[in-house]
Amino acid sequence: MSEKTNPGNFFEHFRVGQRIVHATPRTVTEGDVAIHTALYGSRFALNSSATFAASLGLPQAPVDDLLAFNLVFGKTVPDISLNAVANLGYAAGRFGALLYCGDTVSTTSTVIGLKENRDGQSGVVYVRSLGVNQRGEMVVDYCRWAMVKKRDTSVGAPEPVVPDLPRAVDSSELTVPAGLRVTDYDTALAGSPHLWDDYEVGEKINHVDGMTIEESEHMMATRLYQNTARVHFNQHAERDGRFGRRIVYGGHIISLARSLSFNGLANAIRVAALSGGRHVAPTFAGDTVYAWSEVLDKFSLLGRRDLGALRLRTVATKDRGCSDFPYKDADGNYEPSVVLEFDYAVLMPIRR
Amino acid sequence: MSEKTNPGNFFEHFRVGQRIVHATPRTVTEGDVAIHTALYGSRFALNSSATFAASLGLPQAPVDDLLAFNLVFGKTVPDISLNAVANLGYAAGRFGALLYCGDTVSTTSTVIGLKENRDGQSGVVYVRSLGVNQRGEMVVDYCRWAMVKKRDTSVGAPEPVVPDLPRAVDSSELTVPAGLRVTDYDTALAGSPHLWDDYEVGEKINHVDGMTIEESEHMMATRLYQNTARVHFNQHAERDGRFGRRIVYGGHIISLARSLSFNGLANAIRVAALSGGRHVAPTFAGDTVYAWSEVLDKFSLLGRRDLGALRLRTVATKDRGCSDFPYKDADGNYEPSVVLEFDYAVLMPIRR
Amino acid sequence: MSEKTNPGNFFEHFRVGQRIVHATPRTVTEGDVAIHTALYGSRFALNSSATFAASLGLPQAPVDDLLAFNLVFGKTVPDISLNAVANLGYAAGRFGALLYCGDTVSTTSTVIGLKENRDGQSGVVYVRSLGVNQRGEMVVDYCRWAMVKKRDTSVGAPEPVVPDLPRAVDSSELTVPAGLRVTDYDTALAGSPHLWDDYEVGEKINHVDGMTIEESEHMMATRLYQNTARVHFNQHAERDGRFGRRIVYGGHIISLARSLSFNGLANAIRVAALSGGRHVAPTFAGDTVYAWSEVLDKFSLLGRRDLGALRLRTVATKDRGCSDFPYKDADGNYEPSVVLEFDYAVLMPIRR
Repeated sequence: MSEKTNPGNFFEHFRVGQRIVHATPRTVTEGDVAIHTALYGSRFALNSSATFAASLGLPQAPVDDLLAFNLVFGKTVPDISLNAVANLGYAAGRFGALLYCGDTVSTTSTVIGLKENRDGQSGVVYVRSLGVNQRGEMVVDYCRWAMVKKRDTSVGAPEPVVPDLPRAVDSSELTVPAGLRVTDYDTALAGSPHLWDDYEVGEKINHVDGMTIEESEHMMATRLYQNTARVHFNQHAERDGRFGRRIVYGGHIISLARSLSFNGLANAIRVAALSGGRHVAPTFAGDTVYAWSEVLDKFSLLGRRDLGALRLRTVATKDRGCSDFPYKDADGNYEPSVVLEFDYAVLMPIRR
Repeated sequence: MSEKTNPGNFFEHFRVGQRIVHATPRTVTEGDVAIHTALYGSRFALNSSATFAASLGLPQAPVDDLLAFNLVFGKTVPDISLNAVANLGYAAGRFGALLYCGDTVSTTSTVIGLKENRDGQSGVVYVRSLGVNQRGEMVVDYCRWAMVKKRDTSVGAPEPVVPDLPRAVDSSELTVPAGLRVTDYDTALAGSPHLWDDYEVGEKINHVDGMTIEESEHMMATRLYQNTARVHFNQHAERDGRFGRRIVYGGHIISLARSLSFNGLANAIRVAALSGGRHVAPTFAGDTVYAWSEVLDKFSLLGRRDLGALRLRTVATKDRGCSDFPYKDADGNYEPSVVLEFDYAVLMPIRR
Repeated sequence: MSEKTNPGNFFEHFRVGQRIVHATPRTVTEGDVAIHTALYGSRFALNSSATFAASLGLPQAPVDDLLAFNLVFGKTVPDISLNAVANLGYAAGRFGALLYCGDTVSTTSTVIGLKENRDGQSGVVYVRSLGVNQRGEMVVDYCRWAMVKKRDTSVGAPEPVVPDLPRAVDSSELTVPAGLRVTDYDTALAGSPHLWDDYEVGEKINHVDGMTIEESEHMMATRLYQNTARVHFNQHAERDGRFGRRIVYGGHIISLARSLSFNGLANAIRVAALSGGRHVAPTFAGDTVYAWSEVLDKFSLLGRRDLGALRLRTVATKDRGCSDFPYKDADGNYEPSVVLEFDYAVLMPIRR
């Protein structure tokens, strides 16, 4: 028998400071973009239209920022989270260079923290993952942490290192992609008259639409991202697993929520930062996902009078509309329908 | 609470003569074409093969005409038919410039008629929708009418205006795409020896094959077209809706019928006109769609001895083969299996 | 009524030596590649990454060899196996020029054998099918045989001709694509440290992962290949068919098995030969496919010290993991879970 199959890393294999080169650099194509559109129905004009992109000074339509994120995330799975019990959180995420069709993303991760659980069966692995394009420019750079099983429980616990991650990405870290200018921004073509000026901190937006997920859809998405986590694909094994069925990859819900958010946030032309995110509950095929957003903060951007930023919390639910903005109850527990909380910043044109 | 979500227009919001610029111009890509092939299995050589397209004088393979149609239709939904009860018909449709990968389609509509229903709860909106490429050339130009709800039933009925739409597009309005020549047309590569000369008015063709529709397929198609009509996507809401389940977008059936029609009409290289269409009955996931066609008329084209036109009626059914050409009963009512009647013109090479 | 629908060829229509030009040459695009990735999750770096391909001397990422195979196979179906009862086997397959996005594959077949069954109801048709690119270079060239029904059983049996097909493609027939060099091969980016040197004849590799098939997935794949065999698409007809449901196209299982084989054979950068294959049992939606491989042989390639070949047998199962390498029982009968046996050769870098 052969030992050539990749078993993934277990908790005891990680070392703080370790740098991991992830396999299979990935060239993004128009095919990926079309599948992304077919799976999520995203309508952001900047990502849909070469002419709209040209009107904003860009050479072609950049790919959706969350497609970039999911491609980078997918690369990290075989090395970081193949043996994860749970994907616990995200922080300190920034989006840099726009990703264009034809670009190739390469991904590396650095272990920035390790903390074994008291039972000695698993531990939390903190990594910072960096996706760069073929010119070495940062496309997305973010931290996540996951609870990873130990295989050899006789190995002692490492010195605990818990990184000091910011509660939110600071506005000074938000960057505007090179060349992007919105002097000719056309709100009719973009799909909404509501610009940065029109959003208020504390404002809540019900994105109204609901989207039912099919097994083939979430699997196609997750395979497109070359994410190899087994719980998404194998009904034969999951039948006897924790939930009796395949679990939808969390990034699928993030992309779906972002797509639904077009209805109310059509001018949120780019995701600039990822401050946090929690997959509050699992999602399954057959579930219908809804979303709403709250404006957590508004920022000006240094040296820009044309573009501002909004910090948003987008909450996704399953099988429950969001007209009353379900989130947490009085005790601070999530409402049962909530599946995702996503804290991020977007860029939006300012009215001239 | 925010009012930034697009509620769509209601009947009382439309005015005759009103021009609507639809959001999200759409760049068509090879990705869209591949998904179209994967969803419908279309085999028309002109759309499948760069070398075949080159042999007909074209710079690359144009995208399927119904993909162009569905992309344009999709754009109109958020403004025209988000609150529609029914999509009632099509007329006066013409296909102009071929659409190529890399082209961007922009869509506008003009309200050409309004007629409130007697109950004051809804009315029929007639629009002419125009999709143009990035050079402003007409790609598809067609009329449709839909029954749209009123939100504020206290608003009085507008002066009724019912446009005078032709029963069929006149053959003088059919255009041959610039550069298309069929002197080197290879019937072996095209998949059928039957040319324009071989079809007779009144001839009926059973397209034989049946295709079962899955939920993920019709949703992927409809999202690819960025069509936002809610009844296609949300099982959680439709469970309590009219049919208890998601309804397949009518344009999906049109594309499927056109694709099935390859078997018997392989040399119908382009759709040139859309004279009429009715979605006779709803289609659902699990239904198997079959199709047959009747040649309604044959036209010569002014100044062309190489290409002629056929006016076709393609009828699609569900869960019933078409060897006996199901259509209407003696009383003029549709047979229960019929889901679509589509009246259109195609271009076909003439034998040399 | 019209006779313009293609009924396919029946056994009595074939003649030894007959050459068939298959319809619809097919231009391969980035869209096809993305759908292939979304359906199978393949991660081979050479097919996923333009930069990785460039590091091996290639102008862009070539498409997956089995996508090329399935596209060529699909073309042959309307003429060869539309009336087939069973697809019996493959032999003598070679892969030549790499297929790149933008290339157009044209396919022809030659009938190389015919043998009517004793009952006079059907017979075995042997064909050699050749897919070439737009420069006429061989992309894939293989033999297959299928049992095809007779329509007119009064036609007498032809002189039986059974071609002498090799049990395995000889190593001297394996070619390395022009320009491919692996001097800069990066195993970290490729996803595995195991090179040609590390594999031993007789070694068995469990590819571990399982993938559950959905109806929409196998139908999308099969339509993408423009394969028209009816048993894959029509639940309304198959409900009363042999299995009561749609059958998954065998090539879908081959592609899935190859994709699963990445985990253990990540450096098998190209399929060079197809020596044999049997679709041992049908696969249906809902089945979970697993795979394992055995190294049947190892070859050096004439004049190459950088690349060697492995002859592999990959076995796919349904609803059964492969940790104990299920294959045949003591009597030589396949284990009930086995659905595919695939005998092929791959190229793999040699350690420097």
